[in-house]
Amino acid sequence: MERTLAIDATQKIGGKITLEGWVFNRRDHGKLIFIDLFDRTGVIQLVCGEDASDLNVQDVITVEGEVKERGEKNINPKLPTGKVEVKVSKINVLSHAQELPFDITKENLEVELPTLLDYRPLTLRHPKVKAIFKVQETVIDAFRKNLKGLDFTEFQAPTIVPSVTEGGAQVFPVEYYDKKAFLGQSPQLYKQIMVGVFEKVFTVTKAFRAEPSETTRHLSEYVSLDCEMGFLENWTDLLDLAEKVILGMFRGLGEHRKEELDLYSATIPVFKTPFPRLKLREAQETIFKETGRNVRGDPDLSPEDEKDICEWAKKKHGSEMVFVTHFPTAKRPFYTHPDPEDPEFTLSFDLLGRGLEWVTGGQRIHNYEQLVANIKKWGNDPKDFELYLQAFKYGMPPHGGFAIGAERATMQILGLSNIREASLFPRDMKRVDRRL
Amino acid sequence: MERTLAIDATQKIGGKITLEGWVFNRRDHGKLIFIDLFDRTGVIQLVCGEDASDLNVQDVITVEGEVKERGEKNINPKLPTGKVEVKVSKINVLSHAQELPFDITKENLEVELPTLLDYRPLTLRHPKVKAIFKVQETVIDAFRKNLKGLDFTEFQAPTIVPSVTEGGAQVFPVEYYDKKAFLGQSPQLYKQIMVGVFEKVFTVTKAFRAEPSETTRHLSEYVSLDCEMGFLENWTDLLDLAEKVILGMFRGLGEHRKEELDLYSATIPVFKTPFPRLKLREAQETIFKETGRNVRGDPDLSPEDEKDICEWAKKKHGSEMVFVTHFPTAKRPFYTHPDPEDPEFTLSFDLLGRGLEWVTGGQRIHNYEQLVANIKKWGNDPKDFELYLQAFKYGMPPHGGFAIGAERATMQILGLSNIREASLFPRDMKRVDRRL
Repeated sequence: MERTLAIDATQKIGGKITLEGWVFNRRDHGKLIFIDLFDRTGVIQLVCGEDASDLNVQDVITVEGEVKERGEKNINPKLPTGKVEVKVSKINVLSHAQELPFDITKENLEVELPTLLDYRPLTLRHPKVKAIFKVQETVIDAFRKNLKGLDFTEFQAPTIVPSVTEGGAQVFPVEYYDKKAFLGQSPQLYKQIMVGVFEKVFTVTKAFRAEPSETTRHLSEYVSLDCEMGFLENWTDLLDLAEKVILGMFRGLGEHRKEELDLYSATIPVFKTPFPRLKLREAQETIFKETGRNVRGDPDLSPEDEKDICEWAKKKHGSEMVFVTHFPTAKRPFYTHPDPEDPEFTLSFDLLGRGLEWVTGGQRIHNYEQLVANIKKWGNDPKDFELYLQAFKYGMPPHGGFAIGAERATMQILGLSNIREASLFPRDMKRVDRRL
Repeated sequence: MERTLAIDATQKIGGKITLEGWVFNRRDHGKLIFIDLFDRTGVIQLVCGEDASDLNVQDVITVEGEVKERGEKNINPKLPTGKVEVKVSKINVLSHAQELPFDITKENLEVELPTLLDYRPLTLRHPKVKAIFKVQETVIDAFRKNLKGLDFTEFQAPTIVPSVTEGGAQVFPVEYYDKKAFLGQSPQLYKQIMVGVFEKVFTVTKAFRAEPSETTRHLSEYVSLDCEMGFLENWTDLLDLAEKVILGMFRGLGEHRKEELDLYSATIPVFKTPFPRLKLREAQETIFKETGRNVRGDPDLSPEDEKDICEWAKKKHGSEMVFVTHFPTAKRPFYTHPDPEDPEFTLSFDLLGRGLEWVTGGQRIHNYEQLVANIKKWGNDPKDFELYLQAFKYGMPPHGGFAIGAERATMQILGLSNIREASLFPRDMKRVDRRL
């Protein structure tokens, strides 16, 4: 008999069906055994006899049975299938599960982070853990859909790169045949090259940072949502685009991930459009006025500054999303375009939300000579950038772009306390699947 | 004035417009200078005066001008904009290009492979080269769209992995902090783990093979389109799915990439559904009958065998796509499910097209004890597979899946002679952007 999915059983009251899935939970009531069966569409209650007495949590089973309406007082309003149950006539075990190391039937999986990750294949099956990655899928889908709709071309950025381009220390070397290569810290240089080909491009790709410290918001390997566009009229086109992309994510989440957000009592950030925009120096003045903390003149925002600015934007503008722009030239990479009106600062931005950076971007230098001069000024050798520089040698339009960390966005939307929860198989100093 | 895209100029006859793009070509006729301007939508002819005499090929310009209909005899039927030209009144150079190392204005870019790759940022701008990556984008999009439509969940597979899982030699070691890790040869183990979470999953990810030889059909880094599904009724569900996914690609290419295919005089493969299916031993018999070459009993198909089988399928069944199934157990990875009716062979398949493998897949072992036994039998240590094995310890349904190389498919569709042409920035023994 063809398989019926749990969610579709509600449409087959009185009918005989076959269900397949995992035993999520089991409750014995004398000769009756109640099983919560889990498949990709959710949970459904099975009513079994003593032949279910061998079943363990996480066993994989096929059952045949009849769909019955539950009595009024037995309806479970929390389940989409809560009005029905299946009276099981036949059970077939596809795969037996061994005894579990902890209880995964609770509403909240009460394990510490190391255990959460040591048992990833199991903990990922918990509905709340699983939900994180449906949210992440939607974050990525929305990024892609939005940009495709704006005539951007998706390209595949390379992972193995020939040299270190943005900060030497935080890079992973690769033994590449008998030579040395590296894992890309960002697709930045490649996406700029691709602007010369398709004008408007994006990539969903891996980026790698050999962060020598353990924080709750950095991963050694993460998913970077990167885009770049040519023929800017004004550098603020980039802020408009970033705003549009983020709003597209919020829309996607609102449309498709209500259930998952509810599991975390999470809400989509409150915002005003356009998102408030202030220069770094203005942000620092604001922090001083609001809190008395004097960070005026600092070259960058500290985590505390980011929190304060977000708080201010929410209070003052009713927006949990806020742009900070014009970071100092010395604190941004060599390719960042200086502000023509004040070359000590750059045409760069961070989009902050709920106390953390979500997006970082800016306009890039497109003039070949200026770029070569900057590479030298930053202490690099233009020879290491030969391929990249060709794009500029042979004609590049004014352009810029930005990047979003997929795990970072997921974490912020759901209010997770550690970014490792937002990575399926997080890599850090102490772990690559197993503890190092 | 707001920018008009080349393709939209045809709708603005008599109007004043602003165009932006690259100088693709220049032809001087006395005081008149004809420029072919290139933007992301294509080419359009500009008619300029002597102020265009400084323009070089690949300069980036903004021009203002009036859209005029070309006289009947001046229409260029090969261009979508061929009925109009723009009489330019103002030219603004956004970026000057240096002298090019070769002529990129020809219909075919007549450079050897090393030059094609040494000057990648430039050669990618050639319409025929560019077209390859629009085709590739569609191949990947179609894979994704098809599987999403079938309720598959997309996940992000990790790139850095803790140990070597499928063949020890062909792997790239990574210096991971003070430890050693590796680049994943395939997302296989992770996609199986994810079947335990979402039942039906796919990933678009990088795979790495330290192939110690140079061939025209292998890359050191490639894009793997990987999917895996649980609750198989029959292992042939996988062949049906692979066929559906490939047909979805053909449909996507037919709908969106006609122009690009035409540039290569490429056609979508001819097929009969269901694609012919034959076991390896039958395929070898067929080769013997057709050609007299005796490869009966060989453990695998050689490149020559693949060509012969494809030729036969085309001749006999009118199909350029053909499945070969049931490869010997010894020639497939440890996780491959043996054929219950003949355990010397496996429930595995290759989908061949135009003489080369496009897809490879099969059913996997889902029984924990059987899998542990096989890991040992293949000479590996189950301890190295601890995380992976958890998925099976805690209940896994019958499942299987397959993988498609995005560059391989692109190459086969366009009839390219070297897979490097189908990779934006191909990595091999001798090259990571620059020659090693």
